[in-house]
Amino acid sequence: MKATAKAHTNIALIKYWGKRDEALILPTNSSLSLTLDGFFTTTTVDFQANLTRDQFMLDDEPVEGESYQRVSNFLDIIRTMAGKENLYATVHSKNDVPTAAGFASSASGFAALAAAGTKAIGMQLDNQELSRLTRQGSGSASRSIYGGFAEWEMGGKTDGSDSFAVPVAPAQHWDIRVAAVVLSSTVKKVSSRAGMKRTVETSPFYSGWIDSIPKDLREIKDAIKTKDFEKTGSIAEANCLKMHATTLAANPPFTYWHDTTMRVMQTVQEMREKGIPAYFTIDAGPNVKVLYLPEDEGKVKETLRTIPGVTDVILSKPGQGISYL
Amino acid sequence: MKATAKAHTNIALIKYWGKRDEALILPTNSSLSLTLDGFFTTTTVDFQANLTRDQFMLDDEPVEGESYQRVSNFLDIIRTMAGKENLYATVHSKNDVPTAAGFASSASGFAALAAAGTKAIGMQLDNQELSRLTRQGSGSASRSIYGGFAEWEMGGKTDGSDSFAVPVAPAQHWDIRVAAVVLSSTVKKVSSRAGMKRTVETSPFYSGWIDSIPKDLREIKDAIKTKDFEKTGSIAEANCLKMHATTLAANPPFTYWHDTTMRVMQTVQEMREKGIPAYFTIDAGPNVKVLYLPEDEGKVKETLRTIPGVTDVILSKPGQGISYL
Repeated sequence: MKATAKAHTNIALIKYWGKRDEALILPTNSSLSLTLDGFFTTTTVDFQANLTRDQFMLDDEPVEGESYQRVSNFLDIIRTMAGKENLYATVHSKNDVPTAAGFASSASGFAALAAAGTKAIGMQLDNQELSRLTRQGSGSASRSIYGGFAEWEMGGKTDGSDSFAVPVAPAQHWDIRVAAVVLSSTVKKVSSRAGMKRTVETSPFYSGWIDSIPKDLREIKDAIKTKDFEKTGSIAEANCLKMHATTLAANPPFTYWHDTTMRVMQTVQEMREKGIPAYFTIDAGPNVKVLYLPEDEGKVKETLRTIPGVTDVILSKPGQGISYL
Repeated sequence: MKATAKAHTNIALIKYWGKRDEALILPTNSSLSLTLDGFFTTTTVDFQANLTRDQFMLDDEPVEGESYQRVSNFLDIIRTMAGKENLYATVHSKNDVPTAAGFASSASGFAALAAAGTKAIGMQLDNQELSRLTRQGSGSASRSIYGGFAEWEMGGKTDGSDSFAVPVAPAQHWDIRVAAVVLSSTVKKVSSRAGMKRTVETSPFYSGWIDSIPKDLREIKDAIKTKDFEKTGSIAEANCLKMHATTLAANPPFTYWHDTTMRVMQTVQEMREKGIPAYFTIDAGPNVKVLYLPEDEGKVKETLRTIPGVTDVILSKPGQGISYL
């Protein structure tokens, strides 16, 4: 009862920012992402009759505490689905997501865990079922089931049965690139989870954010379909600014941006003024991801590398969805 | 028919951000400011029967173009009020508002012009009438009629008759200080006027901004009354962040912040973590103003001066309202 799966992380172009149900991880808005080739997690799940509790090894180190509990709680959902409540597993995960790049490894992590876990326990889920399950481990992970562009449809039901990701366009549809800009200081005072919660509960801008999402989603899907890079990039950039603006109006206000974050944003806008189409997006942290076209890779990398406070620039292409090894 | 008046600029603690009537300069929200001792304009208006048009000298240099037109249009309002439509004036203004400090000289400028102009033409207006008139030259100038803390009540009438500033507390009520932090780069791509307009017309956060103002105003007036510096500062800082957040959601999005702006904000928050009560506020530009208490002046000035990208720190106390020389 053993299986291994690999999943890539993804970068949201239309951000997931707020839960309507904390336990089921049901979002207040739909979101859209690009799965990335360069960053992935490989996970082996082995259910064994003789175990009395789960074991979780991350990069060959045993993990306990909160991270262990999230994994074990997620396996509980799988066990319940399979009707095998007393069957525990060893989980071996390997992260090829450099921490400094500022990607949440939970996206690739829970997608790989869901795929390996369900296969190991003997279930055969289609992608939609797998995405719905994955969502309950990590919201953004629900999109990593698919390669290329995927949309997590928020759904409307209270049991979460209609909240899962669907494919928008595969990786091979459009080769756009993402540069992960690594900053020398990446201190984050408010976790994504806490920041999201505080914003939903206190920001007077939150309803404006929610109201603006359907148009952003509709327009970016059109732009992706027609491979309109300028449109895709500007919608993504504006959506990111809007998301971060909601935190500035929270009570107490907060921001994930550092001065270097601002400098990278300025540099990207200057690149555009010089005729290089490049757009930024930022998750709940100080790091910046830059979208660009393959033909501009040299110039974009060089420009980003020379910004004071930037220590590394890691490039990636669109990646594939879940695979079994 | 000659008079000289002096008016100080002011810094808004609850921001004026949006007009409901562009011609009459009627705001979409009430605002509150502190008049500052260190920055002022002195203006002499001399109505002379032999002139065929107005003349405007700023710091001994003749001014034409848009700035001239704003002054002459404002004198038209005074002439109409006085029933002396064909009487032109020479206007001599001297600005003691360092441009680099990033204060709008229009606040002190139009307050001094209104006071000198009405006195020179023979009218005697009370402060409320003077503020209502001043508002039509520059919205924020309506608050500079008063010393100390003043509130510009937005009013509700379409003719603007109930839109003017009122005193909240005089300068001698509370000696809190303001440091104007001068940045090496102060390029501003979007004017305040254009930025305000774009935000009102396109930002999905604008109604959230408007809805949040009455509570901010009520609470900051309480805090000023009881001299609660922590409360006054945090409300002002949060209000500034909210105002700037509205621009990030405009279409197209924009910001007045530079990387150094962000660094100064971070430094102020770090000062607080070290036990120095200091709070920032930022108008429609990259410069930062820092509120602090007199006993912390040395530490605050030194800390701000050593931030990379900061070229000067100019200190000010609460200032007086209009005076006639």
